[in-house]
Amino acid sequence: MDLKPTKPLSGFIELLPAEQRVFDICAARMLNVLRVSGFSMLDLPAIERAEVLTDKDNWDEIETQMFLFQKGDTKMGLRYDGTVGLSRFVAGHMNDLVFPFRASQFSKRYRGERAQRGRYREFYQMDLDIMGINSLSTNYDAEIISVIGRALDSVSDIIGPNEVLIGSRPFWDALFDWLEMNAGQKKDVFVLIDKRDKMGDDDFAEGLRDTLNNMDKENVIKSVFTKGYSDFVNKSDNLDVAINELNEFMVVLRDMGVKNAKIDLSITRGLAYYTGLVFEFKLREHPELGTAAGGGRYADLTGKFSKTKIIGVGAAIGFSRIFAAMLENNQIDLSRFGNPIDVAVLVMGADNVAYASRVLNALRDAQIPSVSYLDTDKKFKNQIEYADKIKAKFSMIIGDDESKNQVVALKNMQTGNQESVSVGDAIKMVKAA
Amino acid sequence: MDLKPTKPLSGFIELLPAEQRVFDICAARMLNVLRVSGFSMLDLPAIERAEVLTDKDNWDEIETQMFLFQKGDTKMGLRYDGTVGLSRFVAGHMNDLVFPFRASQFSKRYRGERAQRGRYREFYQMDLDIMGINSLSTNYDAEIISVIGRALDSVSDIIGPNEVLIGSRPFWDALFDWLEMNAGQKKDVFVLIDKRDKMGDDDFAEGLRDTLNNMDKENVIKSVFTKGYSDFVNKSDNLDVAINELNEFMVVLRDMGVKNAKIDLSITRGLAYYTGLVFEFKLREHPELGTAAGGGRYADLTGKFSKTKIIGVGAAIGFSRIFAAMLENNQIDLSRFGNPIDVAVLVMGADNVAYASRVLNALRDAQIPSVSYLDTDKKFKNQIEYADKIKAKFSMIIGDDESKNQVVALKNMQTGNQESVSVGDAIKMVKAA
Repeated sequence: MDLKPTKPLSGFIELLPAEQRVFDICAARMLNVLRVSGFSMLDLPAIERAEVLTDKDNWDEIETQMFLFQKGDTKMGLRYDGTVGLSRFVAGHMNDLVFPFRASQFSKRYRGERAQRGRYREFYQMDLDIMGINSLSTNYDAEIISVIGRALDSVSDIIGPNEVLIGSRPFWDALFDWLEMNAGQKKDVFVLIDKRDKMGDDDFAEGLRDTLNNMDKENVIKSVFTKGYSDFVNKSDNLDVAINELNEFMVVLRDMGVKNAKIDLSITRGLAYYTGLVFEFKLREHPELGTAAGGGRYADLTGKFSKTKIIGVGAAIGFSRIFAAMLENNQIDLSRFGNPIDVAVLVMGADNVAYASRVLNALRDAQIPSVSYLDTDKKFKNQIEYADKIKAKFSMIIGDDESKNQVVALKNMQTGNQESVSVGDAIKMVKAA
Repeated sequence: MDLKPTKPLSGFIELLPAEQRVFDICAARMLNVLRVSGFSMLDLPAIERAEVLTDKDNWDEIETQMFLFQKGDTKMGLRYDGTVGLSRFVAGHMNDLVFPFRASQFSKRYRGERAQRGRYREFYQMDLDIMGINSLSTNYDAEIISVIGRALDSVSDIIGPNEVLIGSRPFWDALFDWLEMNAGQKKDVFVLIDKRDKMGDDDFAEGLRDTLNNMDKENVIKSVFTKGYSDFVNKSDNLDVAINELNEFMVVLRDMGVKNAKIDLSITRGLAYYTGLVFEFKLREHPELGTAAGGGRYADLTGKFSKTKIIGVGAAIGFSRIFAAMLENNQIDLSRFGNPIDVAVLVMGADNVAYASRVLNALRDAQIPSVSYLDTDKKFKNQIEYADKIKAKFSMIIGDDESKNQVVALKNMQTGNQESVSVGDAIKMVKAA
């Protein structure tokens, strides 16, 4: 019989135990920031009705982007982000939630597209959303940025410092209106701005020329990327409103303790549902990871599900994009995180299993990560090799004498020192080490 | 436009924030037991190649049981348990792992079958496996049972006491041989034993009659369910081996501190890959939840992926079956777990956002779960109502006077007491409460 393949499907992440442990340690630190920041964790289904996932009905096209399947008459698929499920959930539980509602999700998402280098088809994101009914101060936009900053800071020993770039959708809307662009041009230019990073300046300029066929307008738009909004003060009421909002927001950000923020109008967050301020976090020492987190304000989260209007600000931290990618690139020094096992209990002979197990249970009761080697017929050499391989800090060797005298032979695996001590003393020595 | 449905698909779990919090608290307690017991956490892809998920090639039938999809030429689907991925992973990383290898997975699994009452199509299980190359002492079977017992004990305030029933596949094999049953009869009778709980005694007896057509053999098999193995001592070598293994195992279990174990030969764990001892945990006060955890020993985990033989013992804790079910049945008193927010910072007027934010950051730095109400134009009445609704223990009210004097008005939301104190003192008072 042919053996089956042991590699995961391409685009799927699979970490070794030591890597997974660091991934989990990073997640725990960041989730603790969300917890003390009062965000409620939600764990929504990974599978949604197709009509929840998309408004499109061109199934052949959708199937190239998502994992879809049909059960009976119901088309369904795997979520590609956290927002689709959140919208449905919030609309369905309006009376069960207290607004402003701070929600967080840390979950796997799926992209059914063809696997490409550097693109995951299954990945974790950590979402933060703050939602209000009918209204929500932009102070909450600043809070989301503050909390993401704190979450990224909690792992700065690994990923280094971060910075956040603030953009404004209303600025572009006002600029397009001032340039008297039509709806089709607005949409096309947004697509160009979104792809500008990948296109390069020449292709971007050419795209603008094709769309606008007007050198003045083209130059105005290009100027934003070099000079920001400075040329557009006092040009139109809407431009002034957008520019003022942005400047006032920067003050609130500073008030909230966010020190690494700057305005960057090239940030537009693509064609998503964002309608107000938008932002992206970058890791200063890891430009290769691209956007570490991004989000913005939306004017109507639940419109497809409910007549009540939910306004909010939301963001996603690209958790796999940061940590799985860094682990796969060997950019994280795993040895900095110590080892998972403090004690290996080694058992010499079947008669000593009972006593060794009492010792093991005492260690585990004392919250000391510990294992025992229970193939009692294996030689001491094999057993101590095992303790060495799992990088246990100590081994506790238990033979007939130890059982009889109710002690353990505690061996420090680094120094090689070994002494016979009571279980209670051994626990104290391990804890102190 | 018609509004889209807000309910999740049937068979999918969706908890409210307060419920999710208790679900997460239970998971954290149990995962901590696995951590101090030295199990490595693995987080494997939820999607596997179809050939990894199943040996069958009757796709119409498989599609009624799983979520399957095709990308290009590759058929794939969502895992229905943790063992398929583990087998593939271990076979692919034989040289990266230290054996005996203790692995744990806490992840969502999927059943594509038609939704039925009480059956989830997406659910969490917590897997524990201990694997050795070519050999593994049954002491590890006892360890798995000990660790599951400790994990369930860590949440006994919620689920009450547990007990574990121990069965033996070799006993049945030896009994069937002694009864000179043929291969077809053996398989059919195993199916009957597996379904016996649901069938009732009469249907079970009728099933045996149809299969065996021999009243003596039928009575022998039925006797096991009333008298255990007692009639079968000294009947055949294989029966004696199986009975002795079982009795010796009960001694090891007792040695390991497992106090709530008993032999129950009706436990066979269905037609799975188990080849040795098998076991099931029940919750004494929650018989309605059925099997809380179950597992057993397998002789060849990775045979389909590797020529190296991996022997192991594995089990899955039905995490959603226990906690999501109890939450949905209102069997968990959520108020016992306190509330997630300690402090609501209430901000009177936009001018005080800067100072309020400094206070909020100080609270969060001190690991005090806290939020602020940042719609500063809302009246005090609205703000204090919010603090009340989220059941904050305290509110810190910040108006012009507090900003000027660098203090907070700390209000105990239960007693109604309010006093003006420094931020440092307020933090101490909240921590002490």
